[in-house]
Formats: sequence, C-alpha cells, structure tokens
Amino acid sequence: MVARYRFHPSYYNFIRKLSHYTPPGYSKLILAQEVKDFCIRCLTKVGAQKSHSVSLSDVLVSGDYRGHYSHGLNRLEMYVRDIQKGVCETRAEPKIVKESASTALVDGKNVLGPVVGNFAMNTAIQKAKKTGVSFVAAFGSNHSGIAGWYSLMALEQGLIGISMTNTSPLVYPTRARKLAVGTNPITLAAPGKKPEDHFVLDMATSAVALGKIEMNRRRGIPIPRGWGADADGKTSLDLTVVVTKGGLMPLGGEEEHSGYKGYGLGMLVEILCGIIADAAYGPNIRRWMTTDRPANLGQCFAAIDPKAFAPGFEQRLSEYVNIMRNLPPVDAQKPVVILGDFEREHMVECDQLGGIPYPPVLIESLDRLADELKVAKMKIVKTL
Amino acid sequence: MVARYRFHPSYYNFIRKLSHYTPPGYSKLILAQEVKDFCIRCLTKVGAQKSHSVSLSDVLVSGDYRGHYSHGLNRLEMYVRDIQKGVCETRAEPKIVKESASTALVDGKNVLGPVVGNFAMNTAIQKAKKTGVSFVAAFGSNHSGIAGWYSLMALEQGLIGISMTNTSPLVYPTRARKLAVGTNPITLAAPGKKPEDHFVLDMATSAVALGKIEMNRRRGIPIPRGWGADADGKTSLDLTVVVTKGGLMPLGGEEEHSGYKGYGLGMLVEILCGIIADAAYGPNIRRWMTTDRPANLGQCFAAIDPKAFAPGFEQRLSEYVNIMRNLPPVDAQKPVVILGDFEREHMVECDQLGGIPYPPVLIESLDRLADELKVAKMKIVKTL
Repeated sequence: MVARYRFHPSYYNFIRKLSHYTPPGYSKLILAQEVKDFCIRCLTKVGAQKSHSVSLSDVLVSGDYRGHYSHGLNRLEMYVRDIQKGVCETRAEPKIVKESASTALVDGKNVLGPVVGNFAMNTAIQKAKKTGVSFVAAFGSNHSGIAGWYSLMALEQGLIGISMTNTSPLVYPTRARKLAVGTNPITLAAPGKKPEDHFVLDMATSAVALGKIEMNRRRGIPIPRGWGADADGKTSLDLTVVVTKGGLMPLGGEEEHSGYKGYGLGMLVEILCGIIADAAYGPNIRRWMTTDRPANLGQCFAAIDPKAFAPGFEQRLSEYVNIMRNLPPVDAQKPVVILGDFEREHMVECDQLGGIPYPPVLIESLDRLADELKVAKMKIVKTL
Repeated sequence: MVARYRFHPSYYNFIRKLSHYTPPGYSKLILAQEVKDFCIRCLTKVGAQKSHSVSLSDVLVSGDYRGHYSHGLNRLEMYVRDIQKGVCETRAEPKIVKESASTALVDGKNVLGPVVGNFAMNTAIQKAKKTGVSFVAAFGSNHSGIAGWYSLMALEQGLIGISMTNTSPLVYPTRARKLAVGTNPITLAAPGKKPEDHFVLDMATSAVALGKIEMNRRRGIPIPRGWGADADGKTSLDLTVVVTKGGLMPLGGEEEHSGYKGYGLGMLVEILCGIIADAAYGPNIRRWMTTDRPANLGQCFAAIDPKAFAPGFEQRLSEYVNIMRNLPPVDAQKPVVILGDFEREHMVECDQLGGIPYPPVLIESLDRLADELKVAKMKIVKTL
C-alpha cells in the first residue's frame, strides 16, 4: 500500500540501523503520484480502461515504494506491450463462475492481472468476514505485480491475507535439466497491533528472484552457489550463463541443501493456483517475456479472520515480532528483523526523501516509451 | 496411512530406479501390526486410554512406514515419559471452543497430539465438505507425529489437506544467536487420479530435520554449510557442536542463500498455529525434550474441496506430476521425482519385505523399555 503509516519513534530508530535498501545509483527522485499518473497515461494511451490502468498503476507504485523494484515501474513496458499486441483484454471484467459460502472460482477474462487480483481478493475478504476463512482461485489472469499487494488488502481489513501466483517457468526442479517451475511466490500478511508490527512475507519460492541475479550481473558482483544453474541444470556461478541460457534454482539451492523443499513449495503454489483453477501450469505456461499467446495464469487468494479464533491476535502478533527483533544478534551491526521490516525501511526512506528514487537508466528507457506513445514524460523532483 | 496402495506396474519400475530410502543397517524386520500393538501396550500400561493409544500408534507406525523414521517408533519413549510424568493428560478429550461455518478453535485439553490432530482435522474435513474450505486451529496440543498424517486424512476424502504445527525452538532466526523458531513443518497433500500421483509435501521449514544431522553424526558423515550453527548462531560444520550446543539453520541456510525465507516460513507457521490459537509460541515453547510444563503446542488444519473449483482436479494433478517426473534429468541415474515418491518407495519396500526394517540399537532400547514397563517385547520377523 502507498498509504503513509505513522510508526512509533522507537521503530524509526530501529530501522535506521538496517542497511539501506535502495540500491546505489538510484538517483532520480520522482513523486509517487507522478509515477502513478505516468503509468496511467501510458496504459490508457494504448487502450486500457481508466479503471484498469489505475489498478495496475497502484500495484506498480506500491512495488517500488516497498523496495521491490523488480516488480514496479521496471515492468510497465511489459504490460504496455501486452496490451498493444492484443494478448491482454481491455474490454472485459473478471467474473465469478462458481462459488460456495467460502470459495469462488474466478474467470479473469484475460484482463490486466491487478484487475483480476483486486476482484478476487475483495471476494475472498467478503467471504472470510462471513465464514471466517475463504479461498478464491482465478484462471485467465496475467502478471499482477507484487503478490504481497493482495495479502495486504486483507491485512488492511484486519484479516490474515494469503496470495500466490504461478509464473512462467524460470526454475529448475531438483534433478531436472529443463526449466519447469515458476518463481511461484507465497505471500502472507498478518496484522499486528501497530503498523510496524505487521508481518508481511512476500517471497519467491526460487532461491532468489531473477532480477537479483540480473542486478549482480550489471554490477559485476559474484553470486553464491545455489542461486542459479546453467543450460544443463547444473549449479553455475557464471552470471551471463545463468541469465541468458540457464535459470534459477529453487529455495535451498542444490539437492543436498534441501533444494527439493523449495521445489516442493513451488509445486504447492502451482497446485493451489494453476491446477485447482484449470489455468496454464508448470512448463505449459508461455515462456517469460513472450507474448505469443495469453498468459492464462492461475492465482489464489485466501483470507482468514483472526477474530474467528482466540481473542487478542494483533496484540499477540506484536509481542511475537518484538521478541524476535530483540533477540541477541550474531553481528551487533545487523539487528534481527522480521519479514516486512526491510519494506518499511524503504517506505520511510521514500517518505523522508519526498519521493521514490529510481536508476537513471530506467528513467531514460521510460522517456523513450513516453516519446513513442506521445505522452508526457515523468517529472523528476530532483537528482540525488 | 498404512493402507496398502496398489500402484500401476510402470510406477514400480519408476521407483525401483530411486536410491533406497531405508538407511543402511536397518536390519530388524517387524510387522507393522506388531509395531502398533507394542506402542499400544506401552502407552496403555502407563495410563493412556485405549483409543488415545491407538491414535498415537497409528501415526507412529505411519511415520516409519513412510520412511520418516525420526517421527516413528523412535519417539515412543518420549510420549511414554510425558504420560508417566503427568505432563500430558489421559482422561480428557479435545473440544471445540469456538466455531463458524468454516472455522473452529479447538482446545486440545493437553491430551496426546494425534488425538487432538485427528479431532481437529476431522472437523476441518466436515466443514470443507460443506463450504469448500475450512481452517481449524488448536491450542493445548502435544507432539503429534508426522504432520503429513493429518493432510493425508483430507486427501483420503478427496480433499486437499494442509497441516502445520509449531515445535520447541530448534532453529536460529536469520541473524540471531538464540534458538527461537521451531522446525515448524508445512504439509500439503493433494489427490491425483491414481495413488502414485498423490502430491505429499511434508517438510520442516529448517534446512534439515535435527534427526538428519544426528544420523550423520553417528555415521561420521560431514554436513554441508548451511545445515547447522554453533552456540553463537554462526554456521558450523562441527557435528557435535551443532547437535549438542548449537542448532539448525532455516531452509536456505545463511542469509545470502535466502535463509531469511526459511525463517519467514517458520514464522508463517507460528502465526497460523501458536499466535492464532493462543498457544505457546516461538521461544516461549518449552525446550525440546524437557517436560517441566505442558507443551501447549499450537497447530492448524485446513482442507480445500477441489470440487468447489474447476472440474477435473485429480486428472490435472496426475498430468502435472507426470510431466515433472518425465523431465530430462541432470544425472541419468537420478530421475526427477515429486514430493511423495520417496515415501511411496519406502512403503513399497516395506510391503515387499513384509514388514518395517529398524536399526538394532532402537529395538534394543525399546526392549529395555518393555522390561521396565513389564510388557511383551516386539517380535522380530527376521534379521535382514
């Protein structure tokens, strides 16, 4: 969410100790609203409905604001091309095709992913408020930005939110020499008593995201064993080979490091997304960044109402996360954090800067996109 | 489950190619029924009710039959001591204390874990059959054997089963020098069209189970980086240090290998178990193998009815898992498997042997237990 939280002063002191999350060289500062407006300008120009453009833009800005730069403005052009090529629908709306008290099956009608995701998660939220828990699966969907966005929608309503999606195959199953699993993220957001105590897990089930390896490659930083593999599925430390010919390893890395667990979690996500919803699945999903056919992604959205269980959930979660943060650290310079702290650190950094910092190379490429589409470029607040 | 599946002949050929799952030296063959009867003899002798003893014994035998030897007969003595010391109740039954159409909160009444687990998962199954999905959380529970048992209960009813439990702290959170997360397993079982295609994930969120490191230690086999840490939370390759003074690393291992994801998954399990149910949680759970106070574990049990979503789930899952199995392997000697294949391989091995093979040292220690409790020892079918 781009909503500006107010944290307790002690939390600002805490996150000041964390290493800066914004990568070096991100020097172009832009207002969040300007980023959003630019996304809307581009998307509506190529034919997206205004409401669909707003939904996607919100998620993209949230990705950047939370520090997940691989899933923000960086991806705008991909969505623009999907619409231009007609591989993604602009004149339809997602629809429930089957439902029970606590479940729904949604036909995403091949519209922009966030339109499907927002519709499905709102459905899940309404049902969980009535029956305590819900599970909504969608087929006919598209890339939908950070999966955590949808879990956070439930959190904002006092619920535990869960969201997963399948993706194009980018990961080698343990023992296999063919990419056949997506980065298939698992996200869960749970509300603490205070906003700084919200637990927000938003993780790919691969060892790392592809964007992380691409970033190391650009900067010439070696990668450790277990992040990526060559074209034969064997662990590789060669960044170019991994990015251009090979692929990612599952969480855990090689088999002896329990990579089969990451592979198993990737399959778990696929079963709860592509298989249950009858979407494309596994190696049948179109290749990453290709647009020869609709993505037909499968996604799931679940919500659990903590009030249906023991009273005092938010208080207890706050106590728990603070016990974890206050554990004695191995390295005094690196405090123990909980999932969600790094994102909050980046949000605070943006708030203090008065905008979101971006790398010049990305802004240049979006300026070219603006020229091509004949829309106004983004205004830079300042260069840091 | 100990039920004997009939697999397709081609599947027997497939699993014959897998490496044997039974560790070397497991030479004492015992009938599954005899193992079960022995567990019941011991448990009832120290005061457990017959029905409770049967529930626990079923899960323990299933653990061994599925090859998860760390969670079978190996643990019997721990349960016997819990009952002897009165730290576990024998004269109570679990009870629903709060419920909605799709949820329930269960007070485990501190009885044996499998009694709580069976009760809670049966509740989840009934509710999911009505509303499509359910979520049941329990507090006041105890160690309940392999978490996969409960997911498999749902699978046997044609549902997707999910089960998790918190455990005593055995894992270092990323960056911390204190054990504060359990091995907190995540399990999901989903039915394929044929029993050999059932997907059964049953994994600790630590890099490996403690039992795996103990086994390497006994056999003098080195462990790779990222499995365990010393008393200061730093990666260690010293097996004795890891087992006696240190602890486990989360799935992924060190921070640069994405160990924070395993840590995050461990916290996810804790939130859906201890925090939501108001049980003991995180570092507040009693130390492993201590019995100074009731365990008060938190557990969760969920079921999803695939029939509430797109038709043909089982067929699709069968197609998916067979696509994965038939991927070209990196090493021709090591075929790609899906989660559940290794367990089925062990089950077939037991079926062919006509019993479950155990290590002599375990049988000797259980013979001593039999003497102490004045119950009949287990009959050995033969020594392999």
